[in-house]
Amino acid sequence: MKSHIDAIMQTKNLDALLVFGHGEYNPPMYYFTGGGHIMHATLIKKRGEGAVLFHGDMERDEAAKSGLKCIPYSKYDFEALREKANKNVLLTNAMRCELMFKDLDLTSGRVGVYGTYDVSMIFGILSSLQKLMPDIEFIGEPMGDTVFLRAMETKDETEVARIRKMGKITTEVVAEVREFLTTCEVRDDEVLLNADGTPLTVGDVHSKIRLWVAERGAELPSGFIFAQGRDAGVPHSGGTPEDLMRLGQTIVFDIYPAEKGGGYYYDFTRTWSLGYATPEAQELYDQVHEVFDKVMENFDLNAPFKDYQRMVCEYFESKGHQTPLNTKAPIEGYVHSLGHGVGLNIHERPGSALTAGDDQRLAPGVVITSEPGLYYPEKGMGFRIEDTLWVRPDGKIELLAEYPYDFVLPMKKWKQN
Amino acid sequence: MKSHIDAIMQTKNLDALLVFGHGEYNPPMYYFTGGGHIMHATLIKKRGEGAVLFHGDMERDEAAKSGLKCIPYSKYDFEALREKANKNVLLTNAMRCELMFKDLDLTSGRVGVYGTYDVSMIFGILSSLQKLMPDIEFIGEPMGDTVFLRAMETKDETEVARIRKMGKITTEVVAEVREFLTTCEVRDDEVLLNADGTPLTVGDVHSKIRLWVAERGAELPSGFIFAQGRDAGVPHSGGTPEDLMRLGQTIVFDIYPAEKGGGYYYDFTRTWSLGYATPEAQELYDQVHEVFDKVMENFDLNAPFKDYQRMVCEYFESKGHQTPLNTKAPIEGYVHSLGHGVGLNIHERPGSALTAGDDQRLAPGVVITSEPGLYYPEKGMGFRIEDTLWVRPDGKIELLAEYPYDFVLPMKKWKQN
Repeated sequence: MKSHIDAIMQTKNLDALLVFGHGEYNPPMYYFTGGGHIMHATLIKKRGEGAVLFHGDMERDEAAKSGLKCIPYSKYDFEALREKANKNVLLTNAMRCELMFKDLDLTSGRVGVYGTYDVSMIFGILSSLQKLMPDIEFIGEPMGDTVFLRAMETKDETEVARIRKMGKITTEVVAEVREFLTTCEVRDDEVLLNADGTPLTVGDVHSKIRLWVAERGAELPSGFIFAQGRDAGVPHSGGTPEDLMRLGQTIVFDIYPAEKGGGYYYDFTRTWSLGYATPEAQELYDQVHEVFDKVMENFDLNAPFKDYQRMVCEYFESKGHQTPLNTKAPIEGYVHSLGHGVGLNIHERPGSALTAGDDQRLAPGVVITSEPGLYYPEKGMGFRIEDTLWVRPDGKIELLAEYPYDFVLPMKKWKQN
Repeated sequence: MKSHIDAIMQTKNLDALLVFGHGEYNPPMYYFTGGGHIMHATLIKKRGEGAVLFHGDMERDEAAKSGLKCIPYSKYDFEALREKANKNVLLTNAMRCELMFKDLDLTSGRVGVYGTYDVSMIFGILSSLQKLMPDIEFIGEPMGDTVFLRAMETKDETEVARIRKMGKITTEVVAEVREFLTTCEVRDDEVLLNADGTPLTVGDVHSKIRLWVAERGAELPSGFIFAQGRDAGVPHSGGTPEDLMRLGQTIVFDIYPAEKGGGYYYDFTRTWSLGYATPEAQELYDQVHEVFDKVMENFDLNAPFKDYQRMVCEYFESKGHQTPLNTKAPIEGYVHSLGHGVGLNIHERPGSALTAGDDQRLAPGVVITSEPGLYYPEKGMGFRIEDTLWVRPDGKIELLAEYPYDFVLPMKKWKQN
């Protein structure tokens, strides 16, 4: 939680945080500003003090909405600095940073640097700034384990409310896709048809998913998966747009919309088979569903997340599948880990890999996915069920958006022979 | 053009380029890979040699589509490096980079670093790598003037074809918005109505714009502007969603869609007034239109772009408006510069500010916008006309998507008293 950030900085021996970039699509900046159409800002937060946002003068109103202390760039005479720097843009920016640091009495110590931004520009500025301020040590942190990712690992109720709202939108879109698919006409060869009689393609469904998410004011900044048959068996495949939609094929529909402007995500997967399922597909689906339920029933406050990865691996191995427990990087069977934290990043702490630290726990405040699956590309099938869950302050595990777990979806205009 | 990149590296005294990040929404990587759903890749290009793409093993197929020489990360034993690095993630990544460099016989010289990515991670890796490879000097470049922005400044015909296609989509969406607005019913107080009789808001129009762009398979990665009245007079305002749409108000509609996945942009603006315009608005619009045409008629091959900024300033000052020519950062009148290059970045070289270098010219191959405007927020009005143009190899200036310049749009279901 944001309120933990000073303590986390202390643990990491950081005296200040320096964040570059925009207010949107930039989780560290968004975390402090709450989003907002703020371009090219700089944020500095000293340990134990509030964050200060330096921003372009045109963006005064947007910056003020953040509630942070705001200082417009115009406080610093960029043109005069530019002359002094012999028109070297990187040095000019570094000199302005130096003035900002000095205005905040920040002249020594360890400063973490953050942001999703132009790597070239920032590396150049920091290289110059390091020379101007030799008593400051600039620190880069690994992506999955920054002070931000540590703080973001637990959410407050306001954040959870936003994730829950995205969950509502997600399940509404999924319901709309289901209704659309199951009301399609079906050709004799089991291909679904558009209203105009042309074959329905996976790409047609992709377009509708994009539209229905956009209609609800959400975005798909990291894409989505609606994949059929062999593609459903390849976890990274988004689906082949040219493929025709057919009955009796497994469909993995993994959708993770976010609030507009790079805000909070929801993450959700269902597996469907239209009209009917083969007995083999039904059996594998039932296994995924069974272990999904088993994990849900066993989630315990403060247990290491990876304990449940082990539980899923052991279950699947008892059914004869390969898993990461005894196979290095399996390409069929259960090929990934159980879940991950969700927030301003689609993947964040806690992680559930068998190699994850014991500190990645079901602590109060975490929002995680649970998403066991089975993948058999050579059999032309794949399965995954995923919900997003909140470990509440009272220790209860709350499902953030309900949606049925049907596998075979009856087709309204098709009768099995 | 991409074919110029070695010569530009020579000018900048760079021996190699190092690009981090994804294949999408990351112009330097996209420029080499042509997009593709490639996550967390590393690309190294030595001067005079082809680029080499290092990628995760799961993304072998997507990487191969780039046509580049591809090396999967699995060539390097990450786990062994991780042990050797005492599980320090940044050092492990740096050690893997060192092996990649050595595989390409790159052990000394000046290496430029690029990519839109996590600043913390990259700064951390480069800090470690610098210690491992002291004979290499890593170089950051200012955002507007990297080796990539220099190469991207001129486009080949394939790139122009993609921009032209986005122009077609853009003008189709604009036509759809126009048709929608002009067929609305109008209330006695000149407020437009939705089909259900509720007042039409600016936010309703925003939603339709998003939908109609998405329907055509394009994206709005940098947003868009559909702003009415006072907001039209504030160049950075996207429009206030709660505002009701009214007759006789200036509307600035600036839309810049891009190919899906962070590809090529088109940039376009029209200014409209629904039903009628006030005489003052009509007069100001006519001035913007006149100078827009004047610039178009005078564009000359290889002329410095800023010459036309001066032409526009002089024209507007002759009509009594403030401009950057004689006012520092004006907030009304003509408040910005004439245009900019467009490509994989919405703003790229050449620039047209009065301070831009003489080398930012209308050279064969550049794709630029021309977008004069007038802004009077206190009068509740603003105006801008913008098209995207290509300076062809034969020296002709080609408009990449045609669309009418009507200011007053007649309302089909409303009769002026």
